[in-house]
Amino acid sequence: MSVTIREAAPADVATILRFVRELAEFEREADKVVATEPLLHEALFGARPVAEAVIAERDGAPLGMALFFHNFSTWTGWKGLYLEDLYVTPEARGSGIGAALLRHLAGIAVDRGCTRFEWAVLDWNERAIEFYRSMGAEALDEWTVNRVSGTALAKLAGRG
Amino acid sequence: MSVTIREAAPADVATILRFVRELAEFEREADKVVATEPLLHEALFGARPVAEAVIAERDGAPLGMALFFHNFSTWTGWKGLYLEDLYVTPEARGSGIGAALLRHLAGIAVDRGCTRFEWAVLDWNERAIEFYRSMGAEALDEWTVNRVSGTALAKLAGRG
Repeated sequence: MSVTIREAAPADVATILRFVRELAEFEREADKVVATEPLLHEALFGARPVAEAVIAERDGAPLGMALFFHNFSTWTGWKGLYLEDLYVTPEARGSGIGAALLRHLAGIAVDRGCTRFEWAVLDWNERAIEFYRSMGAEALDEWTVNRVSGTALAKLAGRG
Repeated sequence: MSVTIREAAPADVATILRFVRELAEFEREADKVVATEPLLHEALFGARPVAEAVIAERDGAPLGMALFFHNFSTWTGWKGLYLEDLYVTPEARGSGIGAALLRHLAGIAVDRGCTRFEWAVLDWNERAIEFYRSMGAEALDEWTVNRVSGTALAKLAGRG
């Protein structure tokens, strides 16, 4: 049976959290995952959703997912689509599911009038870098994301 | 008179677009700005706003702005605050307005329960890099943002 891609439903939250953890493990950052099923449920299916997800499955078995939200560009003056997590299970890799998920999201981006589709890749993940390049992506090498979090954020906010 | 920071209003759209253009010029990317006043108005003050802005002013004269939106982290399971544009006019630089804008946004992030406050900086903008480091920011050097846009996006979506 072929692979299908569908919108995630509330019943998928446990699967999505498992995929998030497996991806973080691959990224050597497993200890950073503090998300819980209730938090993901609220973020994806709460009163004011802040992200969306699609599931790739074969014969009812989930093989991968893409989790995304909209960002905004002052240069274009319009929203873009930002892919936060792209994941395919180890046993399903190499069968085109990652590419199918990327194409699916590009379709959503075009349908919603987005002029940009973006995501971040780890510098040492050469397989992913080559794959993304083959899909037409441009690496924004000149930019580095800065982050303030935890106690540094509270301190910056004057609440330390 | 001291500098105050307030939420942007629809009457500020022309000023915001001017600041966006001046910032893009500084970033050596002036030709990339295709945003218009109607687009920015829709994005900031339309039926479904996708971004927010605050204005720094002295004596009613705008001296800078910060434009931001919420992103989402699967690791934290919650939304963060993403600063898309931080701008201070050349004549007002060096007087602490950039720091005041960053602190103001950190306060919004904390008030809204965000655990992360992020933005991107250009690799050659050493003054900004040093400034952000002094404010407690961590550079996410390991990650590179990838982008698909224009005809590459249409092609990836199969609409080429």
